[in-house]
Amino acid sequence: MPILGQNQYGKAETRVVRVTRDGATHHIKDLNVSVSLSGDMDEVHHSGSNANVLPTDTTKNTVYAFAKEHGIDSVEQFGIRLARHFVTSQKPIHRARVRIEEYAWERIEHSGQGAHSFVRTGQETRLTQITYDGSSWEVVSGLTDLTVMNSTDSEFRGYVKDKYTTLPEASDRILATQVRGRWRFNWSRDDQETPDWDTSYRETRKHLLQAFAETYSRSLQQTLYQMGARVIDHRGEIDEVRFSLPNKHHFLVDLEPFGLKNDTADGAVYFAADRPYGLIEATVLRDGCEARIPVDLTNL
Amino acid sequence: MPILGQNQYGKAETRVVRVTRDGATHHIKDLNVSVSLSGDMDEVHHSGSNANVLPTDTTKNTVYAFAKEHGIDSVEQFGIRLARHFVTSQKPIHRARVRIEEYAWERIEHSGQGAHSFVRTGQETRLTQITYDGSSWEVVSGLTDLTVMNSTDSEFRGYVKDKYTTLPEASDRILATQVRGRWRFNWSRDDQETPDWDTSYRETRKHLLQAFAETYSRSLQQTLYQMGARVIDHRGEIDEVRFSLPNKHHFLVDLEPFGLKNDTADGAVYFAADRPYGLIEATVLRDGCEARIPVDLTNL
Amino acid sequence: MPILGQNQYGKAETRVVRVTRDGATHHIKDLNVSVSLSGDMDEVHHSGSNANVLPTDTTKNTVYAFAKEHGIDSVEQFGIRLARHFVTSQKPIHRARVRIEEYAWERIEHSGQGAHSFVRTGQETRLTQITYDGSSWEVVSGLTDLTVMNSTDSEFRGYVKDKYTTLPEASDRILATQVRGRWRFNWSRDDQETPDWDTSYRETRKHLLQAFAETYSRSLQQTLYQMGARVIDHRGEIDEVRFSLPNKHHFLVDLEPFGLKNDTADGAVYFAADRPYGLIEATVLRDGCEARIPVDLTNL
Amino acid sequence: MPILGQNQYGKAETRVVRVTRDGATHHIKDLNVSVSLSGDMDEVHHSGSNANVLPTDTTKNTVYAFAKEHGIDSVEQFGIRLARHFVTSQKPIHRARVRIEEYAWERIEHSGQGAHSFVRTGQETRLTQITYDGSSWEVVSGLTDLTVMNSTDSEFRGYVKDKYTTLPEASDRILATQVRGRWRFNWSRDDQETPDWDTSYRETRKHLLQAFAETYSRSLQQTLYQMGARVIDHRGEIDEVRFSLPNKHHFLVDLEPFGLKNDTADGAVYFAADRPYGLIEATVLRDGCEARIPVDLTNL
Repeated sequence: MPILGQNQYGKAETRVVRVTRDGATHHIKDLNVSVSLSGDMDEVHHSGSNANVLPTDTTKNTVYAFAKEHGIDSVEQFGIRLARHFVTSQKPIHRARVRIEEYAWERIEHSGQGAHSFVRTGQETRLTQITYDGSSWEVVSGLTDLTVMNSTDSEFRGYVKDKYTTLPEASDRILATQVRGRWRFNWSRDDQETPDWDTSYRETRKHLLQAFAETYSRSLQQTLYQMGARVIDHRGEIDEVRFSLPNKHHFLVDLEPFGLKNDTADGAVYFAADRPYGLIEATVLRDGCEARIPVDLTNL
Repeated sequence: MPILGQNQYGKAETRVVRVTRDGATHHIKDLNVSVSLSGDMDEVHHSGSNANVLPTDTTKNTVYAFAKEHGIDSVEQFGIRLARHFVTSQKPIHRARVRIEEYAWERIEHSGQGAHSFVRTGQETRLTQITYDGSSWEVVSGLTDLTVMNSTDSEFRGYVKDKYTTLPEASDRILATQVRGRWRFNWSRDDQETPDWDTSYRETRKHLLQAFAETYSRSLQQTLYQMGARVIDHRGEIDEVRFSLPNKHHFLVDLEPFGLKNDTADGAVYFAADRPYGLIEATVLRDGCEARIPVDLTNL
Repeated sequence: MPILGQNQYGKAETRVVRVTRDGATHHIKDLNVSVSLSGDMDEVHHSGSNANVLPTDTTKNTVYAFAKEHGIDSVEQFGIRLARHFVTSQKPIHRARVRIEEYAWERIEHSGQGAHSFVRTGQETRLTQITYDGSSWEVVSGLTDLTVMNSTDSEFRGYVKDKYTTLPEASDRILATQVRGRWRFNWSRDDQETPDWDTSYRETRKHLLQAFAETYSRSLQQTLYQMGARVIDHRGEIDEVRFSLPNKHHFLVDLEPFGLKNDTADGAVYFAADRPYGLIEATVLRDGCEARIPVDLTNL
Repeated sequence: MPILGQNQYGKAETRVVRVTRDGATHHIKDLNVSVSLSGDMDEVHHSGSNANVLPTDTTKNTVYAFAKEHGIDSVEQFGIRLARHFVTSQKPIHRARVRIEEYAWERIEHSGQGAHSFVRTGQETRLTQITYDGSSWEVVSGLTDLTVMNSTDSEFRGYVKDKYTTLPEASDRILATQVRGRWRFNWSRDDQETPDWDTSYRETRKHLLQAFAETYSRSLQQTLYQMGARVIDHRGEIDEVRFSLPNKHHFLVDLEPFGLKNDTADGAVYFAADRPYGLIEATVLRDGCEARIPVDLTNL
């Protein structure tokens, strides 16, 4: 008989908005929460018996109830609370993984009453993934869709040329990417002090942006390593970073047929290409630490 | 024989990035340009003769060449230049319509050399559509994907109840929408002074945000009208505004089964729904002016 | 005071699946219904009074109730029923527009009991738009996302060359497009016999596919006209057709640097490009008929 | 110093269309190819030296050249050829992973000359991933976006009820999912006979569709296991299957307020929900075999 391997189930993409009021000043949290549970689930796969199955509808309800009862501080803290609940309250459940996306909003400036009007920033989406097995924690946070560009200080030269190589070397090019990053915290046990999750996010984001901006780049790999190393060097709570960086190619347009010199030195015109794109992926680790972030970053 | 009606052709979605350099300080413009040409085009439809057809590949080349030769000031000014070129340089072409999307970037703050590092803001996309027939101009600008929310000061009551009505009245709800707006300038002839396009955009955006924030809303229609009226009242260069506003429903979650009161008055938890959504669309006009923006806003 | 112009409101994208049972044989209809209502709606825009406003939640409920009570035959018939209801049952509502998308499913062949298993075909989406003002009807049906390709019998030559033209002429190219089409029926009054909507759709689709396949193409405009003319010539119930056809470019890859001849005559390798793309749009009319389909096809 | 962990790079999403001609009968292959290379790449990350880096532009060129020189039989065979090339021709490259998506087309029936007109089927996308380290192969094929529905023969009862459970039991519901599946072949060495890749795909697809249709389902987990087991039982070349199955909820609409009984027994009306959705994931293995497909299926 075919064997059942790893399995998990839960409710994905529960969209929750939490408003808190401080008089006429409101605060909002806007999340997308996905829960995956694992445990004694052989029966449901083999006979269809749901005797061990907490419905995914219940995991959804739990997200909403917890948002009300406990509020939402950081996404990491909220995910930890949820994961702990499922593992400790349901005997058949041995492991919970909670993934959360957070959408950022800023206040609309206006001269009316109160402070309860917001506009979505639309920049990157903040992410976290909490995994709990009843004894130890793994927290991997990150972001996606942070699009950045250096309009100079990037080159690409001295590479291997084989029979299929036609690319000319570039001494001054645009370097642009849409950052997908994940970083793993070394916090793993309840008796350790938890990081300040929001500060950690804000600072990590700042370091990777600055490393991107301040690195004279001979290859996107070099830039990636600098971004990761900067985070490891500055954020003691993080042991591992992984990036997946599409090289969003901007090709110099050939304007010579029209008698125009399209030279980077005095500003130039580029075609922003969609596909194909280079894709550069790597992990950067604190010395002595083990890599645990999966090699291929999944959607969340 | 079946008759040929309105027709137009051109190159859509030419992606152009223009870098200008002021020493180590760079400026970038990031556009998506779509051109549609009309004129003496019966033959190409009937016999396939391309004798009157300027290739769409050429319209693409022209976009790049003009970006280099003339630079890109505002999207309106760039679109006007392109539209004029096609109509005045090609006899068979009697009308040109140029649509442009602009993606916004802001500088990355860092302590390195130079100022040539950027992060995409990812908020709304700025739009314009320029139409020229050789004698008069129509400029319709706008924006899309500007997502806003009021966490209170919105109600919905006193509506018609028919046999199929089950909705309870709401005296305190979230009002959220993803603004799609277009506004038409009264500039139409070369002998009129052109508006300051960038100022106009910035101020119009500000007015519609503020009207959204400052209106105590009894219906999204009322808010929409206020947004449009505010623009007409403050921006003399604009005669007509049209909005398409999805009502992004946020439903109060029923937490009573869990012994929790989910009451707006002390902050509440909402389910942010995807579909279906209300869709509120209307035009607001300067008194005495004619409506010309199409009722159903197209993609661009 | 700024003037209120055209306005409409309703519930968009109500997703309804209707199952009917004929013993163990089931039939399904899978629709996405959007309703827009217009009429005496000045007050709601000016003062926020909802006294004339049937809630969009009610239009959603009506869609579900009608699907149960009356079933869903064709999307056209279902839309007509809904539009008639809103205009005739609500005094303030003078016009209703119903847009419907239909997703196609086919049966999964298997050797088990019953016939209630389906797989979505995923090819084109069938569309209709019904407009009713209390006396006359306008029915515009169509489709979107029907992607087609001719791997030969397409050329592009003899076009205008200006200063910005670099495109070489092509005597044998791939012609591919993603058909977005709309066609308007001449049925407009209740005392006229209604077309057989499903037969009309099936045959119209067949004609446009065959015209695409059988036309030796000197330009996509010529192919478009043939597609429209074929429909007008064969389907007496249709007076007007409009197509929006992106020219999905497939560029011959230059393999000469690798000593390979990439010649269409013996089969070739192409790069399928995303953006930019040519965009060819035109209306084809029955002689003597008026064009009423908007020039820029909207999303639905 | 921060340590460099796993890293890989290459060109993603190279879109290649290959036409072959058999007189006036053409055949087409339409692929999206992504290559990831790993090996001696420390230097490029640390110093930016590209001395070991074959440009991603070259991997793109190689895809096109191989499509011409060798043709495209199955995606698996094409991926194997590419992976072998990179590992054996470039000393610093120790591992190649090639991912391919294939889009299906069928012929347009018509009465014209030749057979070179196609319409995209738009159903599922066929996938493969080839990994080669110079000695052994791993081939994981699969599909995505195959949307299926049973309109009956599904129930959900007897589950755990905790404090947050409100879901009523269902004895007759719609079961719908969008299948994302991967299966691993036991072929791993060049001295083994390769499977007939196309037959394997066609049969595996058939088995999973039939298992979906023929299983009376007490839970989506049970259906998933049946789908996997059917493949393992019938396809000796496959040792492991993993599915990620969103439970695309179809909720019975409450029509009682309108005096309508919406009962599954005589056909019913459902709301097809977008989010949240249940997500059921599991691996099914041949007895004695090891699981190697990652737990979270990535985009390709």
